[in-house]
Amino acid sequence: MTIAAEAKTKPLTVYMTGEIDDARMAELRQRAPNATLRYFPSDIALEAEIADADVVAGHISPQGLNKAKSLKWVHSWAAGPNAQLFPEFVKSDVVLTCSKGNGAIPLAEHAMMLMLMLNRNAMRWIQGHRDRKWDPFFHGELNGLTVGIIGTGYSGSDLALKCKAFHMRVLGLRRNPQPTPNFDAMYTRDQLHGMLSECDFVVVTAPKTPETANLLGEAEFRAMKPSAFYVCFSRGGIADDKVLYRAIDEEWIAGAGLDAHGVEPLPADSPFWTLKNTIITPHNGATTLKTKARGYEIFRDNLERYVEGRKLINIANKQLGY
Amino acid sequence: MTIAAEAKTKPLTVYMTGEIDDARMAELRQRAPNATLRYFPSDIALEAEIADADVVAGHISPQGLNKAKSLKWVHSWAAGPNAQLFPEFVKSDVVLTCSKGNGAIPLAEHAMMLMLMLNRNAMRWIQGHRDRKWDPFFHGELNGLTVGIIGTGYSGSDLALKCKAFHMRVLGLRRNPQPTPNFDAMYTRDQLHGMLSECDFVVVTAPKTPETANLLGEAEFRAMKPSAFYVCFSRGGIADDKVLYRAIDEEWIAGAGLDAHGVEPLPADSPFWTLKNTIITPHNGATTLKTKARGYEIFRDNLERYVEGRKLINIANKQLGY
Repeated sequence: MTIAAEAKTKPLTVYMTGEIDDARMAELRQRAPNATLRYFPSDIALEAEIADADVVAGHISPQGLNKAKSLKWVHSWAAGPNAQLFPEFVKSDVVLTCSKGNGAIPLAEHAMMLMLMLNRNAMRWIQGHRDRKWDPFFHGELNGLTVGIIGTGYSGSDLALKCKAFHMRVLGLRRNPQPTPNFDAMYTRDQLHGMLSECDFVVVTAPKTPETANLLGEAEFRAMKPSAFYVCFSRGGIADDKVLYRAIDEEWIAGAGLDAHGVEPLPADSPFWTLKNTIITPHNGATTLKTKARGYEIFRDNLERYVEGRKLINIANKQLGY
Repeated sequence: MTIAAEAKTKPLTVYMTGEIDDARMAELRQRAPNATLRYFPSDIALEAEIADADVVAGHISPQGLNKAKSLKWVHSWAAGPNAQLFPEFVKSDVVLTCSKGNGAIPLAEHAMMLMLMLNRNAMRWIQGHRDRKWDPFFHGELNGLTVGIIGTGYSGSDLALKCKAFHMRVLGLRRNPQPTPNFDAMYTRDQLHGMLSECDFVVVTAPKTPETANLLGEAEFRAMKPSAFYVCFSRGGIADDKVLYRAIDEEWIAGAGLDAHGVEPLPADSPFWTLKNTIITPHNGATTLKTKARGYEIFRDNLERYVEGRKLINIANKQLGY
């Protein structure tokens, strides 16, 4: 396109919420020098002017989608863009990208921390510290134990790498099983019960999709060893919450480390807070400055690809849900 | 030696304390079929009859050493045989072996747990859980940070492997520097300050010896970053305790994870219990059934070597102290 032709077309209009400071805005202007870039302090403020936007980095509602006249691409700052997947948006031609992968490493770190704390009974150390009591109890070691990782994407793969460095046996569950680095064996959904019965830890890293919702119900938790721990850092609802509560409370399993919950924020009167051998964190396992920076970088690099007509990365499959 | 000749000599006499159950005793009899094996419930009970012993698995006192008439070998059930190294024993010809290496893996696991809990401010999660409060704060990630490991033996090496799986830069300090797997750079003692100034975590895994006692004093803690954490799981006294307390209390450094302490048990009135950003555990980072089993296996295999006249493993250098 010549400069004369460019002048006749409306410039690419990009509306953004999120963690965009002056330095990042300057960087984005370099990557998309001919675009109109605007920052909004909230999704609501952005939607009030969405009619002209070609690209939105943020979250839009069904009302926003209705008002958008030239929208072609939405980037979700979330790793799992579930909140964007209402039926009208799924049916639309608007492309969805997301920040999947940006929190993979800190999530794998969180899972390792929870696994270590559960295996070693860290709460007894913390109680001893509070009581100033020298209480040198016996505890476990992860070395030699078996972990089953449900979902072998970015975070599941990094977790597998870490578990191998802890001398664990690593099993994986994925839609399309194939040999994968750092996994000792790979299972498909019809082999789920067999995998669960082998595990000392079951870690859910999978996105919540129609396929994974309620994947883990009574039969699955009863297939696990009574000594096994359940860890989830991706999304609540992959385990049936009522069954999960009973599984821990009635000691079908030994306990859990829960960063993702069926209802968030977890209400103060939720019975989950009271479960023994269970560590609850408020879905902030990946809440680090580096996660935010990686999410920004995914969008920044994609914006450059977009203006240059190249293929975007991190496109979400709106039907599969991730 | 013929069977006739064997009959004329006193059988090898092996006296043991520790975790020897009937199954292990049977296994030891298989390995040393011609030996007299006796189990004692305590070191005191053993020393009452020590005169005849050729081999002791346990701990002997200066009085016990005096009473022993044919003692040739002592196996310490501890990984660090410091308690055995009184001057008369060091001067004697009695060979000392120890269980070094038996706790390496769980100690590296303990260090990773402490590093994760400190970096992520896990105590805030635990407080939020107690208060049933949804408090999704920002925290760190180990990814990209630098760890300096003082002592690159069994536990230091395993810790380095784990830190690489956490995408950390791994520096090491050892007596004889040489390229070592999983270490990005190796330092000698005269380069200690330079190494410390690079580190986000300093982890002490070294034995306590005349060479390492008070290795870390005021100049060393002041060389560390204010954001750095100190972790020690081998022996207290490698850091000067008074200086360590000031370094944390006066915020020269960010905090600590302490499994080994200058005085053990740590008294209830120790000021260390009150330090912020500090996690105290009662020197049980390696207290697992597998550690005990590995310690037993070291002795069992060495006993077989001894009766067959082969070279023992895990011999402690009584001068170096490990």
